[in-house]
Amino acid sequence: MKITGTFLDEISIDIPHQNWGRAEWDADFSHMKSVGIDSVYLIRSGLHRFISYPSKVLIKEEGCYEPPVDLVQLFLELAEKHGMKFYFGLYDSGKYWANNQFQKEIDLNMKVIDEVWKKYGHFKSFKGWYLSQEISRRTGGIIDLYAKLGKHCKDISGNLPTFISPWIDGKKTVQSFSSTLTKEDAVTLKQHEEEWDEIFDGISKFVDAVAFQDGHVEFHELDGFFEINKRLARKYNMECWTNAETFDRDMPIKYLPIKFEKLRMKLEAARRAGFDKAITFEFSHFLSPQSAYLQAGHLFDRYKEYIKRL
Amino acid sequence: MKITGTFLDEISIDIPHQNWGRAEWDADFSHMKSVGIDSVYLIRSGLHRFISYPSKVLIKEEGCYEPPVDLVQLFLELAEKHGMKFYFGLYDSGKYWANNQFQKEIDLNMKVIDEVWKKYGHFKSFKGWYLSQEISRRTGGIIDLYAKLGKHCKDISGNLPTFISPWIDGKKTVQSFSSTLTKEDAVTLKQHEEEWDEIFDGISKFVDAVAFQDGHVEFHELDGFFEINKRLARKYNMECWTNAETFDRDMPIKYLPIKFEKLRMKLEAARRAGFDKAITFEFSHFLSPQSAYLQAGHLFDRYKEYIKRL
Amino acid sequence: MKITGTFLDEISIDIPHQNWGRAEWDADFSHMKSVGIDSVYLIRSGLHRFISYPSKVLIKEEGCYEPPVDLVQLFLELAEKHGMKFYFGLYDSGKYWANNQFQKEIDLNMKVIDEVWKKYGHFKSFKGWYLSQEISRRTGGIIDLYAKLGKHCKDISGNLPTFISPWIDGKKTVQSFSSTLTKEDAVTLKQHEEEWDEIFDGISKFVDAVAFQDGHVEFHELDGFFEINKRLARKYNMECWTNAETFDRDMPIKYLPIKFEKLRMKLEAARRAGFDKAITFEFSHFLSPQSAYLQAGHLFDRYKEYIKRL
Repeated sequence: MKITGTFLDEISIDIPHQNWGRAEWDADFSHMKSVGIDSVYLIRSGLHRFISYPSKVLIKEEGCYEPPVDLVQLFLELAEKHGMKFYFGLYDSGKYWANNQFQKEIDLNMKVIDEVWKKYGHFKSFKGWYLSQEISRRTGGIIDLYAKLGKHCKDISGNLPTFISPWIDGKKTVQSFSSTLTKEDAVTLKQHEEEWDEIFDGISKFVDAVAFQDGHVEFHELDGFFEINKRLARKYNMECWTNAETFDRDMPIKYLPIKFEKLRMKLEAARRAGFDKAITFEFSHFLSPQSAYLQAGHLFDRYKEYIKRL
Repeated sequence: MKITGTFLDEISIDIPHQNWGRAEWDADFSHMKSVGIDSVYLIRSGLHRFISYPSKVLIKEEGCYEPPVDLVQLFLELAEKHGMKFYFGLYDSGKYWANNQFQKEIDLNMKVIDEVWKKYGHFKSFKGWYLSQEISRRTGGIIDLYAKLGKHCKDISGNLPTFISPWIDGKKTVQSFSSTLTKEDAVTLKQHEEEWDEIFDGISKFVDAVAFQDGHVEFHELDGFFEINKRLARKYNMECWTNAETFDRDMPIKYLPIKFEKLRMKLEAARRAGFDKAITFEFSHFLSPQSAYLQAGHLFDRYKEYIKRL
Repeated sequence: MKITGTFLDEISIDIPHQNWGRAEWDADFSHMKSVGIDSVYLIRSGLHRFISYPSKVLIKEEGCYEPPVDLVQLFLELAEKHGMKFYFGLYDSGKYWANNQFQKEIDLNMKVIDEVWKKYGHFKSFKGWYLSQEISRRTGGIIDLYAKLGKHCKDISGNLPTFISPWIDGKKTVQSFSSTLTKEDAVTLKQHEEEWDEIFDGISKFVDAVAFQDGHVEFHELDGFFEINKRLARKYNMECWTNAETFDRDMPIKYLPIKFEKLRMKLEAARRAGFDKAITFEFSHFLSPQSAYLQAGHLFDRYKEYIKRL
């Protein structure tokens, strides 16, 4: 199972910044291409007050900080240069939808979508949308949010594809800032299936693909959850991707590049389940030969050996 | 706003050691100079039992460990070689003044000051003193401590300058060892002004400059606190510096180099406030092209681009 | 005191993986040799479901994951190539002996020992055994476990040497995943001596050496504990080694390479105590010039300067 897409972790929640400029990003897109990655997904265009492009909407309405660089423009240009697809990740307020003000989150993002499409929609590399609100369970008004935002993305852009990347509420679901690694009350296969059946039912018209994060369950639990994810996606005619996390959730330092053995196990599980595509969170910190984490360069080498044998 | 001074984080509380020898320090002083840093400030000459120079006083009275290298000598020599100013940071017992034994902390440091000036006062690069006890509020006998130690430093050394580097007791004031990032009971602007008015009133004769750490409040709160700091410093005829932290307080890994955007915002706030000078904690881990954290080298590049445009 | 042996931290509990292939391991064995390390100790052959060699026993009985590489074979080959000794670390279930099912832990490892000796016993570099269950106190059936497993290792292999590496239950005994650095209820010298007298009495026929980890007590407490360790080892005719930890236990990032000054203090304490040998946990992350932690390369340089002066 080969990884063909990666998130770009700008704006980050919990991964320290590498402070790359255009030259480093340009080189990284080359590295991605060299292992078959043809798509990049902006993880979110903004979080709280930090934003990735100079959004008049967000600076005015949310007091966001004027960014020093227009990363959306940069990534679109580099995607164009390297013949890659760019997906725009929506704004995550980090507060409205987390405090049950889903309509406020929707309203803001409606304006962001309008603004962004007007500003960047002419780029040939603008190929899709990522609905950046991350969930694992049927949470508040999330179905409505995904459906409305997905619909607006598609309506405005001539039906460009949309996707989400939820997590499975497994035993490794703990805050990145917590000093624990696991929790007691993991979701069961049955609960997972019931809730996602309902969610997919509500969003499948406006969300083309679902890429579950693969890092929150034990490795031997992957097959069980992947089978459900695949079956539900087929039922609702959605694409089923895996979001193969390339960072390690089992260590006290949160987070460094994953042990290759673990990545291989997760990709193999996705292959066995017959998933349509593998993407990763994310190449530039955890799998890139120019990452500040030198373990990533070695993971890159191990991964290259692996895909050569596929 | 250009950074013209940096702390040297020896002895460190919470930043892992880089294990540099003379060659690496020499190269780092060159890197500092190349971006306009002309002053280095030893963050503290000792903490608990670890000390930066073979102090007979501290080895005898506090059971401190004999150090393998005389870092004070090394830094003074390198400062001389590179035409830079060295400020000596006092000893921090980590216990006496923290347990309300301020007089004991003062007595010890009186002897340290005597010892150090006698041992190293002849260096032309010995240009000032840093009062290393860090506070954010009007704490116990701190006014008395700053005043007495500052006075003795100045008396013995022909009035060489002294400074302190407190923090603002904002919402990001949490222990570096804690897994949390924020606290609830942040100081208000009013409390901050009242307490620092009183502190400055008690110390301004013996402390020439105050360099508040800039990392404990939200970025949009900087202007409010900076305005007070500047106004109070002017009232008491002290210099007002900013201590621009070059590490990131918002991430689970405590700490890696800061996102350039954040550093820029903090320096711009200091510029708007009309501060007299910007220093940083600290160059060698977080802003140096030879830092073990490779993100620092990229931050160095971004910073160089920034100051070129000033 | 020169370090002549190192653990190989595969399978790791809490140190992120470097993702090395054969070429990197080969180079690392060369680096080890260059500073006088002639022995490598596999820290454990497996933990929970992760294993270092394709063990039919562990895959069948414990549902362990088939590893992508046979690390035991790789390390034995490289040890042979570089003229080094390899010690095999037993399997640590991470659960049976931790839940007072010592017999189950013993039974499993009896089969592992049989399997491993049959599979790899012909390697000339197979020179000993490491009993991987780590303790600090007289815990449950640990004496019985060490004695029985040590005996079986020796019986099957023509009396190859065995060793253990316990920790001292000092104030720095906290979980690597915890955000604290110290605990209140440290063991006293008297308790330590009483318990280890009893343990050594029960195991000395089957365990040739004990290598206490040196990182859990304050630096000025080392002499006291080392004197006891040495005296007890002599009493029971065991070799007394120090396991000089090359990572720093005093920092929020758990763990990065130790400050050289600390390593030197610990090695000097072992020298003063007249220990028979110094080994480390571990070279490849914390002391290697090719470590992903660049601080390790500088520690390597400082360490080389140190041993040159011995």
